[in-house]
Amino acid sequence: MTDDECYASLLQHHRQTAAFRSCQSVLHWDRETYMPRAAAGYRAEQVSALAGLVHTRDTDERVGVWLAQSEAAAGGRSSAEATNIREWRRAYDRLVKVPQSLVEETARVTSMANQAWIDAREHSDFTSFSPWLQQIVQLKCDYARCIDDGSELYDVLLDDYEPGLKAAAVAAVFDELRTPLAELVGRITSVAAPHGDAVNASPVAADTQRAFAVDLAGKLGFDLQSGRIDTVVHPFCTTLGPNDVRVTTRWDENDIAVGLFGVIHEVGHGLYEQGLPAKHWGTPAGSAVSLGIHESQSRLWENHVARSQPFWRYFFPEIKKRCGTALDQIGEDAFVKAINHVAPSFIRVEADEVTYTLHIILRFEIERALVSGALAVDDVPAAWNETFRDLLGPTVPNDAHGCLQDVHWSLGCIGYFPTYALGNLYAAQFYDAAANDIGNLDEQTAAGDFTALLAWLRKHIHAVGMTHRSADLVRTVTGTDLSARSYLNYLRAKYGSIAPNH
Amino acid sequence: MTDDECYASLLQHHRQTAAFRSCQSVLHWDRETYMPRAAAGYRAEQVSALAGLVHTRDTDERVGVWLAQSEAAAGGRSSAEATNIREWRRAYDRLVKVPQSLVEETARVTSMANQAWIDAREHSDFTSFSPWLQQIVQLKCDYARCIDDGSELYDVLLDDYEPGLKAAAVAAVFDELRTPLAELVGRITSVAAPHGDAVNASPVAADTQRAFAVDLAGKLGFDLQSGRIDTVVHPFCTTLGPNDVRVTTRWDENDIAVGLFGVIHEVGHGLYEQGLPAKHWGTPAGSAVSLGIHESQSRLWENHVARSQPFWRYFFPEIKKRCGTALDQIGEDAFVKAINHVAPSFIRVEADEVTYTLHIILRFEIERALVSGALAVDDVPAAWNETFRDLLGPTVPNDAHGCLQDVHWSLGCIGYFPTYALGNLYAAQFYDAAANDIGNLDEQTAAGDFTALLAWLRKHIHAVGMTHRSADLVRTVTGTDLSARSYLNYLRAKYGSIAPNH
Repeated sequence: MTDDECYASLLQHHRQTAAFRSCQSVLHWDRETYMPRAAAGYRAEQVSALAGLVHTRDTDERVGVWLAQSEAAAGGRSSAEATNIREWRRAYDRLVKVPQSLVEETARVTSMANQAWIDAREHSDFTSFSPWLQQIVQLKCDYARCIDDGSELYDVLLDDYEPGLKAAAVAAVFDELRTPLAELVGRITSVAAPHGDAVNASPVAADTQRAFAVDLAGKLGFDLQSGRIDTVVHPFCTTLGPNDVRVTTRWDENDIAVGLFGVIHEVGHGLYEQGLPAKHWGTPAGSAVSLGIHESQSRLWENHVARSQPFWRYFFPEIKKRCGTALDQIGEDAFVKAINHVAPSFIRVEADEVTYTLHIILRFEIERALVSGALAVDDVPAAWNETFRDLLGPTVPNDAHGCLQDVHWSLGCIGYFPTYALGNLYAAQFYDAAANDIGNLDEQTAAGDFTALLAWLRKHIHAVGMTHRSADLVRTVTGTDLSARSYLNYLRAKYGSIAPNH
Repeated sequence: MTDDECYASLLQHHRQTAAFRSCQSVLHWDRETYMPRAAAGYRAEQVSALAGLVHTRDTDERVGVWLAQSEAAAGGRSSAEATNIREWRRAYDRLVKVPQSLVEETARVTSMANQAWIDAREHSDFTSFSPWLQQIVQLKCDYARCIDDGSELYDVLLDDYEPGLKAAAVAAVFDELRTPLAELVGRITSVAAPHGDAVNASPVAADTQRAFAVDLAGKLGFDLQSGRIDTVVHPFCTTLGPNDVRVTTRWDENDIAVGLFGVIHEVGHGLYEQGLPAKHWGTPAGSAVSLGIHESQSRLWENHVARSQPFWRYFFPEIKKRCGTALDQIGEDAFVKAINHVAPSFIRVEADEVTYTLHIILRFEIERALVSGALAVDDVPAAWNETFRDLLGPTVPNDAHGCLQDVHWSLGCIGYFPTYALGNLYAAQFYDAAANDIGNLDEQTAAGDFTALLAWLRKHIHAVGMTHRSADLVRTVTGTDLSARSYLNYLRAKYGSIAPNH
């Protein structure tokens, strides 16, 4: 086999696997949107059949042979080819280094742990979940050791979600944020009125909200010929194919902010997916860099764009018209303040853009200490509650509102949380760079024109797929390393002007 | 390998294949309902990836080995096991006897022929489709010869859709129908007023129609926890899993009969699917007998039940209420007459329950003559037009309203059409038997109570899966062979009473 044939085999194999993987996405999307209730049991069997097929293909020994020859080959590779070989190698090694027995044991334990977590959270009883978490931490450490016994184990886990990033780098930037963020939250909330009324004074029908949100998504640049927006219980964005990006959301008739910013957040993910290079579909060169970079796109549109004053200078008259009497009592300024309300709360998924990052710092510190052995599982609630008080103020009333609130650990996802906060940081850095390049970004936003911003994101981030790992991408695009500066500046500028009248 | 292990391998293999095949159904359903327009290209690749996988599994040489040992095994087999081995053998032989080159050539030709047919129908130009149809007839004959060179070739093609049934048996029953049906149509239309007004005098919103149809489906016994009803361009019913039956329909605001009977027809299919034994899912013992038997279930509910006077004695007040003023001008009797309007028309899919069978007889006679060589492809239009005049009266104005109207031949489906008419015949025979067993079926229908009828169908037809081939099933359930008698009696009784005032 020539070197070219070898690469062609790798490409064909992975593209075919991507077709099967994308069928899993169809099954998942359908399950969350339209699947009849009683179909759940068999749907799990369908998913499992495809997962087994994909795993067999991903660990096919021929992939190892093709990779070895491709890596050893002399001769010029295009950037896309080099990216693909690098990432196929990473993925292959991470799969074949882990024994099947450990994979199966982890699947078995997390399946039961997830049910245990549901019960534990319901009864706010950490002790019933603690033995499961112990097993999961142990299994994840075993897993990390299989892949790389020389690194900090948490690095290996983090790498599953943010390839190439190290725990020490995350810790460094989180340490920069810890105190200034906590102070900022304290300052905002000391002058803020309690969050009294919802944005809308009376209910707004879901259909009305939906119609506005779909128009808005189109205005932001989301292509509805290559995507859709549907209603679900737990919103997400998923890609079923190169021209098939499905955004989902939920609606709260009593609080239009829920659906509105939910849609914009997911559309931010969707714009990234729609902007990935279609010709590289099914390969790393056509894939998103990491969860953190993905989250940066959702956060950028949700917060930097759609929670800004200029944005609502354009859209407020329209949403007011659409919502009938429900927004009669509120003006543009009050509306912008209402959608930017900041206050410490116990539940991460309900947190605002300022306190959210503190929630993540807390989880990262606990996870890293669990994996290093510095923290025992039984001590998680005490550590959680103490750090929460330090960072956010209030006393956690119970574990359901504390260390039992998130599903992630019960599913074996350790190292995932940091990507949420990284998304906030990347978003701020990218937005700064875009504003700098574009010049009059606020004016364009105030005119309801997002073409320059989207074109900038397309060119610098979307179109390059996985060419760079996240750290390199940030450096390449913004000229600086991952940093807390843009995010802190953004928050200070915004809440300096908003908070006093809040 | 013991005989038991051998059977277990067959079972496990086919169930796993069924899981992949059901993923194809998910892709298909999504494509027809919600898929964004631009996703079509990649969806074809996903479908093709799964189709290749399913084909590889279906033709796996181990299946042949396992089948041979299972067939040779002594020892008692359950009825389900015997059914499965019989049908797995039939399916396997039909696949492995046909060379891959012929499969690929047929796929290539039909793909282009389908586009040629679309163009030909648009321009009503049979000569541009004729060379494609010639190739298709040739390829289908080659296919039939591969499978069984000793039979009438049309029998082999028919067997793809109606396993076990012979062309001669179809011809015999169609010959019984030809003259009486044509006479009946003449008699009805000679006294019938032209179909002037639609059922509803003013438009009825699709949502209103949908709400009524969903309630109606539930009333008939369709389980909406294990199924759904969605809107599409070309209605169908598909099964995505043992508790996941998806009915689709379309709505015409100017003619509520379109959506109403469309839903009931597809729900008839859906009730069959929901009634198949779930424990045998993914095997012949848990599968429908044939297209004809499937069609009998849709026709039974659509025509025998839902176009009957007793049915509307119960539902007319409700539909009148739901439709607001749109049904103000029509009474129950006039409504029942309107939904039973009979008149010759050129287009099969718009035909009523009487003329429909004549459309099928026409197609069967032409197909059979094409395959035997008695009719040349170039002579199809003339043969079509002459037989149409004999059977239905009017002169076909052009090929778009004649021999170019159906998609089937362009897709390589020859032998499919008879199953539509067989559905009408089976439906009448089953309904007679059910009415005989139940006693007061009309009274129950007039009370909106379908539990006895559904239970009867469940027990005698749905629950037995493919235990019997269609001819045996009809004999077992009704005590008589496939026959035209029940169908003719039904039509004469119904239109004897309805027609004179029509």
